[in-house]
Amino acid sequence: MAGPCAIESEDQALTIAGHVKKSGAHMFRGGAFKPRTSPYTFQGLGEAGLKILAKVRETTGMPVVTEVMDTQAFDLVEHYADMLQIGTRNMQNFSLLKRAGESFRPILLKRGLAATIEEWLMAAEYIMAQGNHQVVLCERGVRTFVHHSRNTLDLSAVPVVRKESHLPIIVDPSHAAGRRDQVLPLSRAAVAANAHGLMVEVHHQPEKALSDGAQSLYPEQFDILCRQVKAIFNVSGGQEPF
Amino acid sequence: MAGPCAIESEDQALTIAGHVKKSGAHMFRGGAFKPRTSPYTFQGLGEAGLKILAKVRETTGMPVVTEVMDTQAFDLVEHYADMLQIGTRNMQNFSLLKRAGESFRPILLKRGLAATIEEWLMAAEYIMAQGNHQVVLCERGVRTFVHHSRNTLDLSAVPVVRKESHLPIIVDPSHAAGRRDQVLPLSRAAVAANAHGLMVEVHHQPEKALSDGAQSLYPEQFDILCRQVKAIFNVSGGQEPF
Amino acid sequence: MAGPCAIESEDQALTIAGHVKKSGAHMFRGGAFKPRTSPYTFQGLGEAGLKILAKVRETTGMPVVTEVMDTQAFDLVEHYADMLQIGTRNMQNFSLLKRAGESFRPILLKRGLAATIEEWLMAAEYIMAQGNHQVVLCERGVRTFVHHSRNTLDLSAVPVVRKESHLPIIVDPSHAAGRRDQVLPLSRAAVAANAHGLMVEVHHQPEKALSDGAQSLYPEQFDILCRQVKAIFNVSGGQEPF
Amino acid sequence: MAGPCAIESEDQALTIAGHVKKSGAHMFRGGAFKPRTSPYTFQGLGEAGLKILAKVRETTGMPVVTEVMDTQAFDLVEHYADMLQIGTRNMQNFSLLKRAGESFRPILLKRGLAATIEEWLMAAEYIMAQGNHQVVLCERGVRTFVHHSRNTLDLSAVPVVRKESHLPIIVDPSHAAGRRDQVLPLSRAAVAANAHGLMVEVHHQPEKALSDGAQSLYPEQFDILCRQVKAIFNVSGGQEPF
Repeated sequence: MAGPCAIESEDQALTIAGHVKKSGAHMFRGGAFKPRTSPYTFQGLGEAGLKILAKVRETTGMPVVTEVMDTQAFDLVEHYADMLQIGTRNMQNFSLLKRAGESFRPILLKRGLAATIEEWLMAAEYIMAQGNHQVVLCERGVRTFVHHSRNTLDLSAVPVVRKESHLPIIVDPSHAAGRRDQVLPLSRAAVAANAHGLMVEVHHQPEKALSDGAQSLYPEQFDILCRQVKAIFNVSGGQEPF
Repeated sequence: MAGPCAIESEDQALTIAGHVKKSGAHMFRGGAFKPRTSPYTFQGLGEAGLKILAKVRETTGMPVVTEVMDTQAFDLVEHYADMLQIGTRNMQNFSLLKRAGESFRPILLKRGLAATIEEWLMAAEYIMAQGNHQVVLCERGVRTFVHHSRNTLDLSAVPVVRKESHLPIIVDPSHAAGRRDQVLPLSRAAVAANAHGLMVEVHHQPEKALSDGAQSLYPEQFDILCRQVKAIFNVSGGQEPF
Repeated sequence: MAGPCAIESEDQALTIAGHVKKSGAHMFRGGAFKPRTSPYTFQGLGEAGLKILAKVRETTGMPVVTEVMDTQAFDLVEHYADMLQIGTRNMQNFSLLKRAGESFRPILLKRGLAATIEEWLMAAEYIMAQGNHQVVLCERGVRTFVHHSRNTLDLSAVPVVRKESHLPIIVDPSHAAGRRDQVLPLSRAAVAANAHGLMVEVHHQPEKALSDGAQSLYPEQFDILCRQVKAIFNVSGGQEPF
Repeated sequence: MAGPCAIESEDQALTIAGHVKKSGAHMFRGGAFKPRTSPYTFQGLGEAGLKILAKVRETTGMPVVTEVMDTQAFDLVEHYADMLQIGTRNMQNFSLLKRAGESFRPILLKRGLAATIEEWLMAAEYIMAQGNHQVVLCERGVRTFVHHSRNTLDLSAVPVVRKESHLPIIVDPSHAAGRRDQVLPLSRAAVAANAHGLMVEVHHQPEKALSDGAQSLYPEQFDILCRQVKAIFNVSGGQEPF
């Protein structure tokens, strides 16, 4: 999965989508509703952003994944997106999880900033207990004393989840790193650890991005990333020999 | 503020309320909607619990504070409670914060498990930006490598918040400790650090409590706590000399 | 215990010692051998610093405590100081602990930056297993994601150590905070939590200090601190009622 | 680098060394002096262990690496070993670092349990400032709130060190994981992140190991590991394209 942090315009979304599809992305990501620490910063385009996502799907054939932040906007996001993301800050927003459990869409459940794996699997359980079993987990770094990356990517979560749950687990190296130059090595590492997939931020003009520009790859960098992770995937084949 | 983790019955609530009022509590706390890690455990009495809280207020004269977990139940909780708590897991549930910002009730905003003070103050800003300036912050421990207490109470948050914000800050030693025997020393420490108040879990039969019994004080213990913290409050008088 | 981070000159040491004694300090602290992150910064005066400490004791009557960093300098430090401190970075320097176990001096054992209480008590056990039972533990903050203070003071360590060990436990709020304005509230909190004592950095000219000036109190501030913590100590009397 | 946590006997060491050499290990590791949390557990064979290491080198041709815990034993360890390891607990044992700086042997410097990269590079600086520039860094996990692995392997340290220092960096997945079943995926991840090497614990009878058996691989597992990491190394070639 690849795409910009936030949908900024139709032109931006289609340009990036064209790039990442060519490099081999299977899904397009982009935020229409953005959870931001400060109430005074850009909060996303809202429904206009969802319409752009629909246009991307129509144009490129790629399914789209985007965040849903609350139960009020759930119907709307469910209408436009192919997969709904529940973000880090909402991992234990139980009302949202229950609503996601009634959805016919697959749910991408990001790990909370300080969540144990048990708490994360229990959050998935809130969704599944309502009948929706299409849950994908996403490791995106946890908060530790370390500050050379924004968060600390916990790749041991991959083998642990693979052993304790039937749910697939993907990795988001962009939010873990917060810095472009760590995204490629962490992406290779995630695939080498047998993650089922990656979610990577890509922007054709990261220096102009409305959010998270510093961690977004240039399209040429994402192209290299795709080639390298495919080669690594072939080594382990996604199966542990012991 | 004192009371049980969860409202279990009218009898339980009134018994505990009688005890804590006598010891000097100014507000009664008790959960009607309980955020629980597992979907399969006791989730609170819901509206029946709110009605019991109203009865406690009527009977004892104490205002009541209780958690509101989502926007759907906001009107209901707002109708019954005198103060609404936004819990640790919801500190960055921005839709809930915005709804709280439209409330006429004061809001108790607990610190997230891995939140920086900047993120916490920004969460308060989401409430205040909507017009509700009645926000009280509550430090309740953060998640660290330490496991002799459930979370690590970060008392340095008290002087920092006092220097960087006009908002009052109280401390919840019960959730930080997770163990009854740490609640008294941490309560004294919180008041000594100049917290504006305390929120303490008390239960007359903690061994039978439906949640968090291990950290609930017996009424006699809470009585000692009240006397000790009052004496300590008199030392610093809530003012820093430098 | 109070005094400067590092002994800088006889004049500096005697001036500060005079101040802290008047305010009520029972012991004088000051570093002669300083463990510094960088090899290129001030490393302490060495033996010259120890001689100044001896002069302070002679002049003021206060016993002196100072850090010993390695087994090579042990005899030397043991000769001059009344109590020997083993620092945070050396909590599991087992050769140093064993040598301390053969000493006739009491040992002040600081908690490691990421040490559990079990590891800390086991480090004390390395000393006691050699025959020296005079060990005092010192909580000085642990490293967490929090950055509004240099480390996070873990005051729950006080009741836990009091329950699990016969060893006394003191608190060093200066290194935990790393900022002068948090030292007073954290000192009151530590005494309120029933710490057996405090170790506080004081400097008459902190802006000129060769190390840790930002966290050193002015003598007038230390004087206020002494008065406030004595009043708080009288409340709990160092005993837990339950 | 591969071998047992501790040297237990000549037979044990030679058996394991034979296995790991055949699988492709370039160096043999094994502890003769073991830093243990408790003074009452197995502390290593001491000089007898060093002699066994020399025998392993003689028999297999592999250079040997082993930990040196203090300055007293430095000459002895330097005499027998080809590379000297400074362990996690001693990363800021400055006297030991200075002695290592006078050594003619290369030094393997493990990252402290809660060390920032800046502190780690400064510890290396203590060695290099004395004239010994042969320093290899070893990431082995840091302490966080996470407990599904013993420590949290911080693979972002690899790209950061590669950008900020000329020193090579290897990864020890065994101590980070503390569990055998995470060692293979974390080893692949480390090499995928462009670590210069790995240090892995292997034991032919881990259930009988005197220390760290639970994290030691069986020789057949190490053989699979070697084949997989070589294939991954070929993908990135140890160079970052951007």
